Amino acid sequence: MTDIKKADGLHLGHKGTPLLDRIAGPADLKKLSRDQLPELSQELRDEIVRVCSVGGLHLASSLGATDLIVALHYVLNSPRDRILFDVGHQAYAHKMLTGRREQMHTVKKEGGLSGFTKVSESEHDAITVGHASTSLANALGMAMARDALGQDYQVAAVIGDGSLTGGMALAALNTIGDLRRKMLIVLNDNEMSISENVGAINKFMRGLQVQKWFQEGEGAGKKAVQSLSKPLADFMSRAKSSTRHFFDPASVNPFAMMGVRYVGPVDGHNVQELVWLMERLVDLDGPTILHVVTRKGKGLSYAEADPIYWHGPGQFDPDTGDFKASSAYSWSAAFGDAVTELAKRDPRTFVITPAMREGSGLVGYSRAHPHRYLDVGIAEDVAVTTAAGMALQGLRPIVAIYSTFLQRAYDQVLHDVAIENLNVTFAIDRAGIVGADGSTHNGVFDLSYLRSIPNVRIGLPKDAHEMRGMLKYAQEHDGPFAIRYPRGNTVKVPEGTWPTLEWGTWERVKEGSDAVILAGGKALEYAQAAAADLPGVGVVNARFVKPLDLNMLRELAGSARTIITVEDNTLVGGFGSAVLEALNSMGLKVPVRTLGIPDEFQDHATAESVHARAGIDAQAIRTVLAELGVDVPLGV
Amino acid sequence: MTDIKKADGLHLGHKGTPLLDRIAGPADLKKLSRDQLPELSQELRDEIVRVCSVGGLHLASSLGATDLIVALHYVLNSPRDRILFDVGHQAYAHKMLTGRREQMHTVKKEGGLSGFTKVSESEHDAITVGHASTSLANALGMAMARDALGQDYQVAAVIGDGSLTGGMALAALNTIGDLRRKMLIVLNDNEMSISENVGAINKFMRGLQVQKWFQEGEGAGKKAVQSLSKPLADFMSRAKSSTRHFFDPASVNPFAMMGVRYVGPVDGHNVQELVWLMERLVDLDGPTILHVVTRKGKGLSYAEADPIYWHGPGQFDPDTGDFKASSAYSWSAAFGDAVTELAKRDPRTFVITPAMREGSGLVGYSRAHPHRYLDVGIAEDVAVTTAAGMALQGLRPIVAIYSTFLQRAYDQVLHDVAIENLNVTFAIDRAGIVGADGSTHNGVFDLSYLRSIPNVRIGLPKDAHEMRGMLKYAQEHDGPFAIRYPRGNTVKVPEGTWPTLEWGTWERVKEGSDAVILAGGKALEYAQAAAADLPGVGVVNARFVKPLDLNMLRELAGSARTIITVEDNTLVGGFGSAVLEALNSMGLKVPVRTLGIPDEFQDHATAESVHARAGIDAQAIRTVLAELGVDVPLGV
Repeated sequence: MTDIKKADGLHLGHKGTPLLDRIAGPADLKKLSRDQLPELSQELRDEIVRVCSVGGLHLASSLGATDLIVALHYVLNSPRDRILFDVGHQAYAHKMLTGRREQMHTVKKEGGLSGFTKVSESEHDAITVGHASTSLANALGMAMARDALGQDYQVAAVIGDGSLTGGMALAALNTIGDLRRKMLIVLNDNEMSISENVGAINKFMRGLQVQKWFQEGEGAGKKAVQSLSKPLADFMSRAKSSTRHFFDPASVNPFAMMGVRYVGPVDGHNVQELVWLMERLVDLDGPTILHVVTRKGKGLSYAEADPIYWHGPGQFDPDTGDFKASSAYSWSAAFGDAVTELAKRDPRTFVITPAMREGSGLVGYSRAHPHRYLDVGIAEDVAVTTAAGMALQGLRPIVAIYSTFLQRAYDQVLHDVAIENLNVTFAIDRAGIVGADGSTHNGVFDLSYLRSIPNVRIGLPKDAHEMRGMLKYAQEHDGPFAIRYPRGNTVKVPEGTWPTLEWGTWERVKEGSDAVILAGGKALEYAQAAAADLPGVGVVNARFVKPLDLNMLRELAGSARTIITVEDNTLVGGFGSAVLEALNSMGLKVPVRTLGIPDEFQDHATAESVHARAGIDAQAIRTVLAELGVDVPLGV
Repeated sequence: MTDIKKADGLHLGHKGTPLLDRIAGPADLKKLSRDQLPELSQELRDEIVRVCSVGGLHLASSLGATDLIVALHYVLNSPRDRILFDVGHQAYAHKMLTGRREQMHTVKKEGGLSGFTKVSESEHDAITVGHASTSLANALGMAMARDALGQDYQVAAVIGDGSLTGGMALAALNTIGDLRRKMLIVLNDNEMSISENVGAINKFMRGLQVQKWFQEGEGAGKKAVQSLSKPLADFMSRAKSSTRHFFDPASVNPFAMMGVRYVGPVDGHNVQELVWLMERLVDLDGPTILHVVTRKGKGLSYAEADPIYWHGPGQFDPDTGDFKASSAYSWSAAFGDAVTELAKRDPRTFVITPAMREGSGLVGYSRAHPHRYLDVGIAEDVAVTTAAGMALQGLRPIVAIYSTFLQRAYDQVLHDVAIENLNVTFAIDRAGIVGADGSTHNGVFDLSYLRSIPNVRIGLPKDAHEMRGMLKYAQEHDGPFAIRYPRGNTVKVPEGTWPTLEWGTWERVKEGSDAVILAGGKALEYAQAAAADLPGVGVVNARFVKPLDLNMLRELAGSARTIITVEDNTLVGGFGSAVLEALNSMGLKVPVRTLGIPDEFQDHATAESVHARAGIDAQAIRTVLAELGVDVPLGV
């Protein structure tokens, strides 16, 4: 991840975008001739590369989906017809074709466009999304609403092969195949989600072209097609040399068996053929899967060659692919380094990821300990319950997961892990406000939803040192333990650093009793910055949210004039709420101010900006201190 | 559901249980000859019927799984080999064969056996379970732990066809097929979960026997088998006339395509043949699915004829099946009646259930409004996100779901519904302590986990009248609304009762200011009973947990000596916590006592008993009132 990338040549035209310049919305797209569509796709890709070169955007998947998006908008009539994008991070071409081209430079920036599709952003965005595998259930609901209300439009869902490893996509397909409502599912098969895809479904799709039934089906399909229309048969024949495909080869294809018409696989970068095919599929009754094969990073040689790296790269030179690696040490890297060492010390260590090897800092671990590493695909529920099975049989599994994605395994944490108090550690990355990815990705609920589950303990390390102490503790003591840390950087610690943690204790990091700030993790940084020059203000590293350090809390209730809690979590049911509960149940009276994320979804912006708006950054804390009568110098 | 059932004849032998009497554990079972196994199965079934005739137990599924359980314990060596039961409610024969026969009369009773498998109950119970579709991920984790630790045992999961409609089972299968660890999956295909099974997978399995590939496969399978062993080929040939089955018919079976060896379907009630087959499968490398076809209610004619009814029947006469219907009006029935009417008034009403038509009171609705009713199978995530899709396209969907199962769709509530503030109503049944089903089924977390999600409103109707007011409100106003009610009964209201609810307001049901009790739903009943004869004690129907009635709360903070909150929900982050948060943020000082379910999992017992233990029933509230100095007469 930290190598300097260099492209093997120049791939961008810089010829301008004459076709794209004419398109203010889908209606303008339809004025183009089919022959012009490949050129339009190229212009869109050039524009996407330019937009993404500023860094942090979803480059590779958006390049890969451009042709199929052009075809969908050419054939369908959005917004009347609904086009749903699973995850929604591949839809940059969709945004540009639906009137948002001029705002593309604002993607993921405060006040700008979302990095995903978002209903409130455009009438053309059918769903607000960010998590995977939801599009099929959404599409089913829309098709049923259409039919219930006696309306007539098409519903099309674009879903990647990675998202299809998520259980709810498979379960939705189960109902879709049963009810057979009119619906088009474009299976965008780029052979990888963010990490390489794993699992049997992926193998199955890779095997499509070599299966005996496929080859037999091809004949049957061709026969069926010939009886339909001459041009289609011609097309099938022409396309054969590149990608194999067929129409409903009897009933032996598993999708077809489930009751869904299956067409494919076809070349997802031949936009004219996609249009030709979609025109014929769009009015058919019942559900149809169009299986298209695409390349992530399409058209950009360095991105095609390493699409995992280019999934959401940092800033780069669009002509050369030159990219400056960051020298910062992320929390994810700190976790990866820690568990790589831990697994050497303890044969019971086993790390599980739901398709987030790179994001969770596990590339090194997966190479060092391939037999104690498991990627279950985009299936957080499976990740947690597999860990439960391991714990029941003597391992000490660690589920490495983003806070926002752990939401998808809430019941598995409760039902499969917590009831039996199993030895499962949750390494919760991207906790708190994540910034640019916005409301679908903020990890600001975990303290609330985990705290209410019996047996689950929660720690917020202040740095990599303390994180190692918590990981070590988790491996040596029984029961589930959630260790929560933010997106961002921490300090690197020497190999072999395994401090012993005093369980359940907070740490006074600054004395003072005019007001005492209790904060853990990211919020502690703000608290320390706010109080640095204020002699009367104490700061406590509240590194445990469950259990609370009741001894210190009792002491503080007796000594502090006011207690201020700060948390990078919703105020509802979070850390401040835990402190209120504890003080009340101990019968202790001390004024408490709770600072945290307000009870509303936070749009994308930098994390710092959201923290300032929410009132938990250093400046906001100082304002509160001033309100409480602390003498706060101006201008710091 | 309310008809008197009458069996068509006597089916129980009353011949005693000579074989079962010899079995104190799996080792004793292995001393029996194979010829004796059918008789043992019959004895187990007789015993199950007798045990279940006291009412409230899982009869039909336990009868159906008895033969395969006998075979599994005959072939495997539990507890060394791990036998996992999905959901765990079909495992009565397993309990009886593993030393718990004498305690079977205590199933689901306080201090007695759990209705499911439970790790802390027996070394033979591999998982603690109650929710569906988790066994495959658990089994995968166990197989990986075994391999990582260099151990050697077998892991066998028994999963019903209903549980296989759950996404996480399908997603786990995806990884199982990829990793190919040694594992036996017994697919117990009884053609129904609790309701009739729905969905394409079910259709697919029903179609197994008529598929062309199946018939072809049968030939291929036979050839493969002949080269293996003569007796197996004989067996295949013998069994053919009853149930069709085969060994790995090339690669065309979808399970086989996913990398899982597939054997079946075979007769799940021929215990000798099951043993013969399992002995040959148990040592094979990689994962094997043994597809067995069983009948729910096997051996009990009236249960076979109506297994949905006999899934978990009330008290009945084991000889005749005579059963007295209850005349009580359940909350579920009240909901079903209300939505059946509501859908007549409003064409946008659409009700979705995850395989709980009967339990949620929707049999009548599903008949009255078949085109505005959807059962998605055991896939709560799909239920919620399908509702989101419907709401986006103009419907007013209602997701009818048990509190404990809504846990499985936490992220879908947050990500798919709440972010866009969609018009989805959650009718949350079985909220609070459910009693006999115990820790896996208690609905005591919903107030906490829902309250922390922005935009989600929460109401606790005190009766069917108020429930209708809330349902009506939900259909007329925007945004998600969770309406929570307990297992148990309420009063019937006349058709056409559609009261107008004053949004966000609490209701003073009894004046008094020595102490004021705030409680909603079931807890309100206790509060009213506790305060009935106490003139100084006020009671407030706190029917909204979000939003709180801040006006009334402010007023009470000024007038009440003490506020007592009572809730049938965990104390952590629940209603009491919301009151503490609100008082603190308004700067109001009033002593508060919070009563609720303590922060630990509650074992099975009657709900009343758990409520007493937890300290929220009327007597417990009176004890607290006495502590606070209220004059509480003794002995009431």
